[in-house]
Amino acid sequence: MPDCIFCAIVDGTGPAELVYADDTIIGFLDIRPVRPGHTLLIPRAHATGLADLPPETGARLFQAGQRVAAAMRSSPLGADGVNLALNDGRAAFQSVFHTHLHVLPRHSGDKLGLAKGFLTRRAGDLAAIAEMLRTELGTDPVNQG
Amino acid sequence: MPDCIFCAIVDGTGPAELVYADDTIIGFLDIRPVRPGHTLLIPRAHATGLADLPPETGARLFQAGQRVAAAMRSSPLGADGVNLALNDGRAAFQSVFHTHLHVLPRHSGDKLGLAKGFLTRRAGDLAAIAEMLRTELGTDPVNQG
Ligand SMILES: [Zn+2]
Ligand SMILES: [Zn+2]
Repeated sequence: MPDCIFCAIVDGTGPAELVYADDTIIGFLDIRPVRPGHTLLIPRAHATGLADLPPETGARLFQAGQRVAAAMRSSPLGADGVNLALNDGRAAFQSVFHTHLHVLPRHSGDKLGLAKGFLTRRAGDLAAIAEMLRTELGTDPVNQG
Repeated sequence: MPDCIFCAIVDGTGPAELVYADDTIIGFLDIRPVRPGHTLLIPRAHATGLADLPPETGARLFQAGQRVAAAMRSSPLGADGVNLALNDGRAAFQSVFHTHLHVLPRHSGDKLGLAKGFLTRRAGDLAAIAEMLRTELGTDPVNQG
């Protein structure tokens, strides 16, 4: 899809800190993280939202979410919990119209951090965090696999 | 799982306004909806969270979410958008430890309504809303299918 910033990440022309990749889905760090490690998972094939996302691809998207969530807990990121969220449509706060699943690591007692994160959303050290998750997931950022 | 309120809904001993059912997943209205139509989808087989949810079941859970989201848009509920959310672990605000996917209908300009909904979470007319979604999804509440 021309001018889609997420399609550009899929085809390698847009920059991203890759976290996860398989033949259907890729994952990378949100550049405006609500919390450090905030990851976005997207289908490689452009889909605007849930309505044009093939159910087989939706299945793979969620399964990638389970894998990344597990890595957020087991990696040095040390998440105590994880939120998965998919915002479908402008009324649901979707802002990039290539559908994406948010995977948000949480730590006990971070409520204030979350509220603050929604206000500031500073990038932090994306490269180091991405490397941590890639290592846990066995993702090769060069081959995207 | 004894004493699990969602397992009780699956086995028919706990009350719920059923919205969706297939051989793996059931869906019912949240009794404390953030917005009218707020639905919870759960696996019939007890799983505490993402870690003990079989990936095949996770796939079905998400696909049920896609179907219910479509029904929220096409039914008289007339959603303009939908949020899918799964809170995994107490640190991520999970409150019932039978994993569940929130499906939340949204309407353009409802931001205040959402904030207010999180505070009040009144039940409203659950029966009428459930019937609206069951009709759209072709769910038979007696046979749960
Ligand atoms: Zn795209
Ligand atoms: Zn249960």
